Amino acid sequence: MIRGLTRAGLGSTWSNEEFIRKAAAYGFESVDIDAKGLISSLGREGAASLLAETDVAIGAIGLPVDWRSTDAAFKQALPALAESSAAAAALGCTRCVTYILPSTDQPSARFMAQAVYRLRVCAEILGAYGLRFGLEFVGPHHARTSKKNPFIWTVEETLDMAAAIGLPNVGLLVDSYHCHTTGFQPSQLERLKAEQIVHVHINDAKDLPVEELRDNDRLYTGEGVIDLKGFLSALKKIGYDGPVAQEVLTPEPPAGDPEELLKRTKAGFDQVFPD
Amino acid sequence: MIRGLTRAGLGSTWSNEEFIRKAAAYGFESVDIDAKGLISSLGREGAASLLAETDVAIGAIGLPVDWRSTDAAFKQALPALAESSAAAAALGCTRCVTYILPSTDQPSARFMAQAVYRLRVCAEILGAYGLRFGLEFVGPHHARTSKKNPFIWTVEETLDMAAAIGLPNVGLLVDSYHCHTTGFQPSQLERLKAEQIVHVHINDAKDLPVEELRDNDRLYTGEGVIDLKGFLSALKKIGYDGPVAQEVLTPEPPAGDPEELLKRTKAGFDQVFPD
Amino acid sequence: MIRGLTRAGLGSTWSNEEFIRKAAAYGFESVDIDAKGLISSLGREGAASLLAETDVAIGAIGLPVDWRSTDAAFKQALPALAESSAAAAALGCTRCVTYILPSTDQPSARFMAQAVYRLRVCAEILGAYGLRFGLEFVGPHHARTSKKNPFIWTVEETLDMAAAIGLPNVGLLVDSYHCHTTGFQPSQLERLKAEQIVHVHINDAKDLPVEELRDNDRLYTGEGVIDLKGFLSALKKIGYDGPVAQEVLTPEPPAGDPEELLKRTKAGFDQVFPD
Amino acid sequence: MIRGLTRAGLGSTWSNEEFIRKAAAYGFESVDIDAKGLISSLGREGAASLLAETDVAIGAIGLPVDWRSTDAAFKQALPALAESSAAAAALGCTRCVTYILPSTDQPSARFMAQAVYRLRVCAEILGAYGLRFGLEFVGPHHARTSKKNPFIWTVEETLDMAAAIGLPNVGLLVDSYHCHTTGFQPSQLERLKAEQIVHVHINDAKDLPVEELRDNDRLYTGEGVIDLKGFLSALKKIGYDGPVAQEVLTPEPPAGDPEELLKRTKAGFDQVFPD
Repeated sequence: MIRGLTRAGLGSTWSNEEFIRKAAAYGFESVDIDAKGLISSLGREGAASLLAETDVAIGAIGLPVDWRSTDAAFKQALPALAESSAAAAALGCTRCVTYILPSTDQPSARFMAQAVYRLRVCAEILGAYGLRFGLEFVGPHHARTSKKNPFIWTVEETLDMAAAIGLPNVGLLVDSYHCHTTGFQPSQLERLKAEQIVHVHINDAKDLPVEELRDNDRLYTGEGVIDLKGFLSALKKIGYDGPVAQEVLTPEPPAGDPEELLKRTKAGFDQVFPD
Repeated sequence: MIRGLTRAGLGSTWSNEEFIRKAAAYGFESVDIDAKGLISSLGREGAASLLAETDVAIGAIGLPVDWRSTDAAFKQALPALAESSAAAAALGCTRCVTYILPSTDQPSARFMAQAVYRLRVCAEILGAYGLRFGLEFVGPHHARTSKKNPFIWTVEETLDMAAAIGLPNVGLLVDSYHCHTTGFQPSQLERLKAEQIVHVHINDAKDLPVEELRDNDRLYTGEGVIDLKGFLSALKKIGYDGPVAQEVLTPEPPAGDPEELLKRTKAGFDQVFPD
Repeated sequence: MIRGLTRAGLGSTWSNEEFIRKAAAYGFESVDIDAKGLISSLGREGAASLLAETDVAIGAIGLPVDWRSTDAAFKQALPALAESSAAAAALGCTRCVTYILPSTDQPSARFMAQAVYRLRVCAEILGAYGLRFGLEFVGPHHARTSKKNPFIWTVEETLDMAAAIGLPNVGLLVDSYHCHTTGFQPSQLERLKAEQIVHVHINDAKDLPVEELRDNDRLYTGEGVIDLKGFLSALKKIGYDGPVAQEVLTPEPPAGDPEELLKRTKAGFDQVFPD
Repeated sequence: MIRGLTRAGLGSTWSNEEFIRKAAAYGFESVDIDAKGLISSLGREGAASLLAETDVAIGAIGLPVDWRSTDAAFKQALPALAESSAAAAALGCTRCVTYILPSTDQPSARFMAQAVYRLRVCAEILGAYGLRFGLEFVGPHHARTSKKNPFIWTVEETLDMAAAIGLPNVGLLVDSYHCHTTGFQPSQLERLKAEQIVHVHINDAKDLPVEELRDNDRLYTGEGVIDLKGFLSALKKIGYDGPVAQEVLTPEPPAGDPEELLKRTKAGFDQVFPD
């Protein structure tokens, strides 16, 4: 498994280049950034050189498509999706991810039908560039009722959605916080196959009843109550060898020196990563 | 357009053969029956001869698959689906239909994902035998709340579902009662393309607020308040040339002589069919 | 059916705007031009206004993707495909077309597998913008051996290819020259369904054995030996109501005044179009 | 990896039950047999008990569908495919395989289009029962010209075909003989992902130029010149953990006591299997 970072929780104003260099300096092997943006600032050659030099990969790009609102919004973003996919592929990135909110203001059934169609189109485009597509279920309970109608939030439901999409490059983004808040145990994770998992997020939870945990109030890796050793051991056991990227969403941008936060993150990873 | 019949509303105990002969005698050109059953009783040759002799076609078969409950129930029916499809194709039938209840005891979003997957498998099998697959939306208001969660009941939602399934042979079954109870007007029907419509049901409604109309309390064609002339004119205008089959669901099996009911049906068709 | 034009055979240096105005002046109702280019020169509003004012539609855009060579070339064009699709949709165009050469320098079977995959990706993108995708088989005999290996050139083969692609928006582009050179008769055309045909090209052939006809040596509509009345009657009979666009490929750019050629084209159309 | 057997090369007249017991006695963990046949003879309970008792799994079933000839032949077999899939699933088998001849009497391109369509239908049915579908490329040179037109025989081509089929449960059957005869080296095998491989066949080749090797003249595992240690090490390295089933096709049914041949097979496996 690859030690990875997202920017969430680091509170930095680092450029992508600085972020990559800092990540490398603390032993991280992947960062989740916008590949197209990196190429915009450094050129394709420059971006590729930086990644090669630092031995840092782009773990995943985010899906640059608003598939949750209107058909017009969806379509408008497809040229950008093709461009972002091309940029990602040019830098060796093989993953794109999107999250699925557990409630929606639209009627649930119709929204699922629309989502399946739209995400299939996205998956076909991503697949043409060799990218896999990870669907992230979102577990916190408050988010299940923050919009009018319930949608989906469990692994099983997300796998059903992936089956409905029906393409070979679609799988899960497994986030430790969402596993925790949906009661998805390491033993259950062991029943998945590695190839069903496209990407992994890691972070920790406060010692509260899971019903009270807020999506944007997470803790740094290793500083909370989630059995992250169990989580990572299960992933290792089934043969997952992709990135495990920290994503710490917080109510306020984290205070403190970004480099200190990075050091703290490294310490957390050291503590929970299996040998 | 082809004048068609289902058994619903005729209250007969006719065998399939009798039903076909009676249909022919009253000028009907298609019946919706189980093709496999017809072959079972008459043999393939006999069944084909009967249809040729009477000049009656099988308008559509019903989907012999329970896609609304468990995965096990779904799978169990696939061999039968392949056999029914083969039987239908052997007799020149090119349509299979299923209805979609407007509410479900399962969580709506997940059920849609499962339904899309399962109906895609069905559609692939049907397609191999040259059969198109018509999805029937169900409009009556009481049915929208008879189970725990709302599902879908409009043309737009059903088209979204068909798009999620994503195969060329999937379209709509348009039923005059469901159009009436969902407020889908002939002018809206004209905006569809003929090839989006796989099959048509016709029947009539009591003079009640649409909110009060019961799914199983329909009237014979031409005996109620639905603008069936407008309905059929719209279908003709867009070039629909398939079967229009009467389906009169009633609380009790209809009393009276089946042949009288058939005569009455013919009179209703004569009244509303465009020239 | 809609009287349509491509630029092939008119030999003009007209701008798109001039082309549209000339087309309108001679009673043509559609032109096959690059929608994105029209928007580039006139703006979206301007382009839409011009089409509305002249009552000319864009019949079809050409597929801006090289799907016949390398995987890299294929992928590179996908952002442009999304942009062209968006432009077409913005101007009300609902068709995109590509031609399939009847021979290939690549091994035939593998090339078919690649083509099916690549054209599926294209079809998904086009479909997101409401565009149908027409596959044009190419009939002239010399083209069947101009490259190393035979590919496909008949209607049946092209329908098999469309079935392999497997999406609802894929169909045929039927060109009178390719029908003539493959011996596909009007009576056979009548066995197709209108919805299987996305677009139509019309043009005429010299009075030569079909084996000797060159792809780029066509005649103007009505000036050769093809039974174009039969061709168009068959299309009308099955209910095809889309564009029929003249495409006259010639060894040299046609001499003579473009407007005269347009007038001549109109005369040809008047002669062969059914009432 | 699981030590597996097919019947090819053992020359036995053993019943399925005897075959399973003999396999278990010599340390084999899977057999490739007809699951439906096993259930026919022992009942579902009996079949499951036998497999549980002997700790032998059914590695893969063969595809009971003739997808290589007419459309009618293809369709006729779909009910049987659904039944065989159900039987396989009932006994815990998760793989179905078919081979692809490297030449065909049909035009290559069209046959590929038809094959992609037909195998997609098969893959959808198999997928409904949780079965993956392995495509076996066939390498021997004589077979590339034994029918009129070349088809496909390399890993790359077969992966292109799988991509054209486009479903998540389709992958490769990798046979050591076909790797050997197409020059596909262990180092190339290492570039595949484990999840691309559905099933593996093992057997050995005579010390002849690969061009001269006959498809039905193979040697027992470990008795020829193929680098089977390299082959298996590569599979192990990429994480393949499914069955590796011996398949020794011979010009004549093998002489000698089947149990001796089984003993000999075990010795071969002992020699080449990685620790």
